[in-house]
Amino acid sequence: MSRTRFHEALDELKDRLLRMGGTAEQSIAYAINAYREGDRKQCAVVFETEQSINAAHREIDELALDLLAMQQPMAVDLRFIVAVIKINADLERVGDQAVNIAQRVVEVLDLPPAELPADVPRMSGIASQMIRQALDAFVRADADLAQSVLATDNEVDRMKREIEQAMLAKMHHSPQFTRQALDVLLIARNLERIGDHATNIAEDVIFWVRGADVRHGQVDVS
Amino acid sequence: MSRTRFHEALDELKDRLLRMGGTAEQSIAYAINAYREGDRKQCAVVFETEQSINAAHREIDELALDLLAMQQPMAVDLRFIVAVIKINADLERVGDQAVNIAQRVVEVLDLPPAELPADVPRMSGIASQMIRQALDAFVRADADLAQSVLATDNEVDRMKREIEQAMLAKMHHSPQFTRQALDVLLIARNLERIGDHATNIAEDVIFWVRGADVRHGQVDVS
Repeated sequence: MSRTRFHEALDELKDRLLRMGGTAEQSIAYAINAYREGDRKQCAVVFETEQSINAAHREIDELALDLLAMQQPMAVDLRFIVAVIKINADLERVGDQAVNIAQRVVEVLDLPPAELPADVPRMSGIASQMIRQALDAFVRADADLAQSVLATDNEVDRMKREIEQAMLAKMHHSPQFTRQALDVLLIARNLERIGDHATNIAEDVIFWVRGADVRHGQVDVS
Repeated sequence: MSRTRFHEALDELKDRLLRMGGTAEQSIAYAINAYREGDRKQCAVVFETEQSINAAHREIDELALDLLAMQQPMAVDLRFIVAVIKINADLERVGDQAVNIAQRVVEVLDLPPAELPADVPRMSGIASQMIRQALDAFVRADADLAQSVLATDNEVDRMKREIEQAMLAKMHHSPQFTRQALDVLLIARNLERIGDHATNIAEDVIFWVRGADVRHGQVDVS
């Protein structure tokens, strides 16, 4: 494989990863829309999408391994490919979190409706945006943008604590709505985990970009 | 670097990963002992241990990257190194879960004691055993043992649901203990996530062993 073909293959790898990121984001959006609109059908879409996310996860891993095996990559490409493998694992788990949310939504839609003071859609918007920014940072090899994702994670953690407090108060004062409040509390925790995965991705981007800086694409043969 | 030195370095990589696995397991044990014995000091040990787990995580990643860069590995070694990178990421997150548990324990020890029907130590024992078995499967390149870890995950999920139901009932009937019951419910979820990480590790072992079988250590140059 020529260097040109090799770099085309790296681009292909990047494109597939971004497509997978887009699918994972959509999956979160469907789960949260299902919650907001009380629409079970959108949960079914999330469950179906998980299959294609898992398939994409395997394909990206295999392509990355093939590229590692086929040509001794320079250090800069090596770190890129390893970053893809790590980001790939995180995106797959973002898909799992969307499934967890959809499962909770199915459950909550079976229960008597309750007035719950929790802005789940807003929290979800921020968590999704973190994923998108982390992938943007990856595309642009932008460590500063990746750094800003890490800062946003504090905001998501704050919202999680806020929702947790509000749901605890609800359970305390209206025990008949304990189940519904717990479901929303757990959805908030799933969103927090999506924020954690975005953080992991951002850290991988920083690791990759800084490594590329430090080593200038040369293999350290000490 | 000679092939012999290269294989010594692979062994070193494996040893470090296993040590890290041992540390992560200990961290879980400290967090759960703190819960069982109401001993805050053991939580402090968990918080300190996180630093050394994070350091080990970075060192293992760098060593793995150096090995990928220094010598064009055969496909079998390549998959091994990539498996180490993935397992390393999961072990680091097991350490994070131990920290989350310890944080909940600190919180619960500040609250009035409550009678909570949840066998947390038993669930923790099973989750820890899954980590140990997954790493054993890795050491022995034993896909069957890895497969049995996947089966055990169902048991952990079952215990999580059991504790969740019991804690929900507690909150419902004794709202004054909502906070304590929620803490225990969340500890059970942290343990479930440790089981998930063991599952991820077991899947990586299967991926590595099967890949090694399929490719017979040859690079696929198609």
